[in-house]
Amino acid sequence: MKELELIEYIRKTAGKPASGVIEGIGDDCAVIKYGKNEHLLFASDMLVEGTHFEIKRCGYEKIGRKAVAVNISDIAAMGGDPKYITVSIGIPGHVKIPQIKQIYKGVKKICSEYGILLIGGDTNRSKVLVIDVSIMGLVKKKQLVKRSGAKKGDLILITGPVKDGKKEHLTFKPRLEESRYLTKSYKINSMIDTSDGIAPDIARICSQSNAGCTVFAEAVPLSKGLTMKDALYYGESFELLFTMSVKEARRLIRNTRAGKRRANYYVIGEITGPKEGLKLIEKNGRIAKLKVQGYCHL
Amino acid sequence: MKELELIEYIRKTAGKPASGVIEGIGDDCAVIKYGKNEHLLFASDMLVEGTHFEIKRCGYEKIGRKAVAVNISDIAAMGGDPKYITVSIGIPGHVKIPQIKQIYKGVKKICSEYGILLIGGDTNRSKVLVIDVSIMGLVKKKQLVKRSGAKKGDLILITGPVKDGKKEHLTFKPRLEESRYLTKSYKINSMIDTSDGIAPDIARICSQSNAGCTVFAEAVPLSKGLTMKDALYYGESFELLFTMSVKEARRLIRNTRAGKRRANYYVIGEITGPKEGLKLIEKNGRIAKLKVQGYCHL
Repeated sequence: MKELELIEYIRKTAGKPASGVIEGIGDDCAVIKYGKNEHLLFASDMLVEGTHFEIKRCGYEKIGRKAVAVNISDIAAMGGDPKYITVSIGIPGHVKIPQIKQIYKGVKKICSEYGILLIGGDTNRSKVLVIDVSIMGLVKKKQLVKRSGAKKGDLILITGPVKDGKKEHLTFKPRLEESRYLTKSYKINSMIDTSDGIAPDIARICSQSNAGCTVFAEAVPLSKGLTMKDALYYGESFELLFTMSVKEARRLIRNTRAGKRRANYYVIGEITGPKEGLKLIEKNGRIAKLKVQGYCHL
Repeated sequence: MKELELIEYIRKTAGKPASGVIEGIGDDCAVIKYGKNEHLLFASDMLVEGTHFEIKRCGYEKIGRKAVAVNISDIAAMGGDPKYITVSIGIPGHVKIPQIKQIYKGVKKICSEYGILLIGGDTNRSKVLVIDVSIMGLVKKKQLVKRSGAKKGDLILITGPVKDGKKEHLTFKPRLEESRYLTKSYKINSMIDTSDGIAPDIARICSQSNAGCTVFAEAVPLSKGLTMKDALYYGESFELLFTMSVKEARRLIRNTRAGKRRANYYVIGEITGPKEGLKLIEKNGRIAKLKVQGYCHL
């Protein structure tokens, strides 16, 4: 069973969300009714040794950092602010006190940087190193962005060049500042973080918005040395991918061209009708099908 | 490093809780300010194959059930109501679709039973089966019970005979109903779930309440076949252990003796001053020291 199919199975198992739940399984975060002006956001991301990282290459501090960073990215993808985390950790026998401290050093550093509090968790013996972080955040009702809101005619944008996930998956900076700027000042119709490759990530927006898309390969900004294939299908590059009307996109590009904001925003395609499917215009002008399956965690 | 020391290290790393956090690391749940009348509860518990269970003996459905049940028990220990969970799962290659479905069947069943919604999570490949559940709950401000509220002169009670964790750790019923009854109708000063053996669990209440205790071995109710040593130090029996004034305890025993409630409440000791330490009165009348270290997950 592929990961997407498994998630679909779990979603069906979970049943329909109840009245207090605005968004259940299927977005970067679950969204729960909170106060007058805000909603609660809730997400979990697990890192497993041998699947997501090889500890000898990575080092413990960076793994602690990454476990939190991927969760911050989920909160950013909804337009929210990260607030609290729990860290559950499975520790193999060969990992001793200094290494455990390194992990928590990485956790603590990024928490301080983003104003997040570590409020709980669990510690266990395990054959492989496992770190599962759950995050709780808040989002202003007006600034909540879901995957499902893309509209026909929207432009598809990305917050920066697609990074080489193989090299930068430990050190990436979650796009929280960009998320705040975008959701505060513009009407963002849909958003996702590019954790699995931009092709499957765009496909998710389209699927949940009942839409199609046309992506222009030549317009996709790439970090130095990155191939288009890896940008589309490898993942582990945590930019934000979002859609907005042409009018709003014009305003964004105009406002940011002046260099006021550090991140650059790139238009890489447009949202079409559901019947038009998922199209990729390759460099030679050939129209290819954008594949749905990207970086698979299973 | 022992588990308790590690938790202490993590607590120090986490720093002082901020204004919105009523309770950070160190209780069964973290407590966060929510609305006018309620607080949010947040907890995580991880189960690891080879540490907490051997899948050949347990079966997949029961493991799914247990992963949720231990979290419900944490919410019950604070006087709260469980609301939402996320399930993060690491899946070994030999675990196929039917087994994964069994796990989620167990998750779904206990969620339905307790009115809990599955709202998210993560799925990953892993060398060993790992299930980490994070739970979010609500607690009425008036009904919140912490570990730290035990008062000198309080009686120590338990919600039922200590169970044989080795046999019943998969099928136990979290004491949510009892928690609701107790916190609604009585002044409970402190509470914890007996996951690690009642000796270390009582020790935690004493440590966090700056108190001592005297436990009467003969008064500790045991399930059939369970030894006193296992009751004190083995754990995996998920009763609630709580303290209340003598007056309140009298009222509770009087009200429940009539058989109106299914659970029985047993007085097993009393809270003393911090200088008196942790005492266990053994069957032969000898005064022993109650050891702090119980079932260790590390």
